[in-house]
Amino acid sequence: MPAPIITFTSDFGLSDWFVGVVHGVIHGLCPEARVVDLTHDIPPGHVARAAFVLEAAARDFPAGAVHLAVVDPGVGTDRRALVVEAHGQAFVGPDNGLLEWALGDPDARVHAATEPRFFRQPVSRTFHARDVFAPVAARLACGAPIAGFGARIADPVRLARELPHRVEGRLVGRVMFVDHFGNALTNLTEDDLAAAFPGAGEARLEVAVGSRVFRGLARAYRDARAGTLLAILGSSGRIEIAQVSGDASTRLGLGEGDEVSVSVAAEAAR
Amino acid sequence: MPAPIITFTSDFGLSDWFVGVVHGVIHGLCPEARVVDLTHDIPPGHVARAAFVLEAAARDFPAGAVHLAVVDPGVGTDRRALVVEAHGQAFVGPDNGLLEWALGDPDARVHAATEPRFFRQPVSRTFHARDVFAPVAARLACGAPIAGFGARIADPVRLARELPHRVEGRLVGRVMFVDHFGNALTNLTEDDLAAAFPGAGEARLEVAVGSRVFRGLARAYRDARAGTLLAILGSSGRIEIAQVSGDASTRLGLGEGDEVSVSVAAEAAR
Amino acid sequence: MPAPIITFTSDFGLSDWFVGVVHGVIHGLCPEARVVDLTHDIPPGHVARAAFVLEAAARDFPAGAVHLAVVDPGVGTDRRALVVEAHGQAFVGPDNGLLEWALGDPDARVHAATEPRFFRQPVSRTFHARDVFAPVAARLACGAPIAGFGARIADPVRLARELPHRVEGRLVGRVMFVDHFGNALTNLTEDDLAAAFPGAGEARLEVAVGSRVFRGLARAYRDARAGTLLAILGSSGRIEIAQVSGDASTRLGLGEGDEVSVSVAAEAAR
Repeated sequence: MPAPIITFTSDFGLSDWFVGVVHGVIHGLCPEARVVDLTHDIPPGHVARAAFVLEAAARDFPAGAVHLAVVDPGVGTDRRALVVEAHGQAFVGPDNGLLEWALGDPDARVHAATEPRFFRQPVSRTFHARDVFAPVAARLACGAPIAGFGARIADPVRLARELPHRVEGRLVGRVMFVDHFGNALTNLTEDDLAAAFPGAGEARLEVAVGSRVFRGLARAYRDARAGTLLAILGSSGRIEIAQVSGDASTRLGLGEGDEVSVSVAAEAAR
Repeated sequence: MPAPIITFTSDFGLSDWFVGVVHGVIHGLCPEARVVDLTHDIPPGHVARAAFVLEAAARDFPAGAVHLAVVDPGVGTDRRALVVEAHGQAFVGPDNGLLEWALGDPDARVHAATEPRFFRQPVSRTFHARDVFAPVAARLACGAPIAGFGARIADPVRLARELPHRVEGRLVGRVMFVDHFGNALTNLTEDDLAAAFPGAGEARLEVAVGSRVFRGLARAYRDARAGTLLAILGSSGRIEIAQVSGDASTRLGLGEGDEVSVSVAAEAAR
Repeated sequence: MPAPIITFTSDFGLSDWFVGVVHGVIHGLCPEARVVDLTHDIPPGHVARAAFVLEAAARDFPAGAVHLAVVDPGVGTDRRALVVEAHGQAFVGPDNGLLEWALGDPDARVHAATEPRFFRQPVSRTFHARDVFAPVAARLACGAPIAGFGARIADPVRLARELPHRVEGRLVGRVMFVDHFGNALTNLTEDDLAAAFPGAGEARLEVAVGSRVFRGLARAYRDARAGTLLAILGSSGRIEIAQVSGDASTRLGLGEGDEVSVSVAAEAAR
């Protein structure tokens, strides 16, 4: 049997000891788990950003992976702690929309983690990653059944998300994330494109950002000479705006929320 | 038996390969250990900062954990290498005050690591984390007895630390650390408060920083509306100055060494 | 048998989820491996910088270690994927010079990884660390023979590297890397010095940087009073320019490519 994998995403940064302490709690309770940091550079309190990271990254992990995610401005208040089984994996985090991708699975099982015997005692007011979420994730990874943590609930907090929508012949989406290389990742997925423009080859798609229009999707980041801007299907299956050997987002002034749209060229590129 | 845990704290940063090499040395000598990074963002040579991180974080780890800490401006000189057993855990690092929390345990056993057969040979002039400290920590985690590394010593270098002190009716402490969120962590612990003001409930405590006075301790970071400043008992059991959904230290201009004091309100909050 | 060690070096940064996903892929395919991050702070696309990091760090790892390195501006083009056995270790990365230190071993065995059954399918256009390199590194660490990944090749891309050269009585090299502490690491190694100046003790060596000349090599970073500049043999066996308790590179305005030379003093220091 493979070792259980627990991913960990937070807004804790790496300058303090908080991330390390969470690793320690997990190793103490489920020594066979492998703990994998996704990122701890989520801007403080930016729940939607972390939800996007989980959505983009979780599908790359094997079935059975446990995703621990803590961006938790409401720590110490009465916001609930969630344990979710969805997409063949498990998710642990605060009930504030962070686990939106899991909650969007129509077959998701959502429980509130309320059983104090699974927590680290005493539970502090300010660090539930250590006292509540990590112990639950560790026990889940080591085989504890989800139903034991607390009652199933039907009303988790959902994240308001603007999905791509049709405007006349265009599919209109937005920039969701600018990555380390300056690539602007959108919410326009391969599946969205296939549904909106069935049968249209990539060469006929036109991607518009501001006044720029890219005809056809690129086949590689280096599909043109250095400095060229392009649109490409990135590794999480969504349209990215990129620059060959450069930083497209700085060049174009692109940021989270900017509009990107796709249409089909009137005449095919031959 | 649980896997041994080795924590690692340094001023090495993550841009070079030094942290990775230390992990490699440990895995080579004690493959069953789990290595947990606390932080490598200690400002270069800032021994007291690292000592504070160890004090705040070590108690969150299970008995038997080994804490490797290297902030070592004297590398290559005749400063000693220490192995300490204290608080039910073990500590390995240079003899420069870094291990102060361990040394403060009246039952601490302190040895100088001098046996070259436990080191990586040849020992370099500049990287004892790799050549001396990591090999010792790895062997300790895998069961080597502390007495084998070298003689017990009675005169480790101690860190001068200003403890909270009474000034008339006030308990006066200082800001020790500003965390990633801008919370200002002090040296005023829950135990200090209980000793100084026995029987006083949290609601009666007044915390003063500069010209601001907080009446009562908050119950959560979000115990008031966004922007409100508050004092709260944080996750390492000490008074923190925080701001709801914000950065208190930037707002107040707070930094390491600034005075924070506590007193009891003349009349109780009812 | 010790657990296999896989090191990982990239230009991915730690703000996105790319590094974590690569860890996840490795854990899924070779759960017993220990994954060690060297650094992910290579400037985007800076192949030579990453090649230097591998050269400086790899020798500190045990025989059998697998080094995964991905700085890959040509991802998605027809650049090859390499698997190399050299120096008793294995190396996996793109065929762009990144693995130069391994390729420089006259006994190196170099294969192109071409067998799609070892890749994660479908292979994306933009993330071969996840889809090609990590699966190959994981399988190699878990015992797959190098010959199975694809044919042996004789023409890997080599990195143009300027080696130290003699100019009259001087051995002239360059700054290759400025580390986190501001130490300037050169390409002048202990072996180069022994070959160029046989029998000359360290005390007689003179190291010149710009208009400054250091007589003799220092024995420790703190071999003089704070602020003093010095030359020292660093932990990867090469001459470094350092400052006692300070940042030599900022002080001297030193950067990658700056010239550093060594000669022997006319009369020995006694």
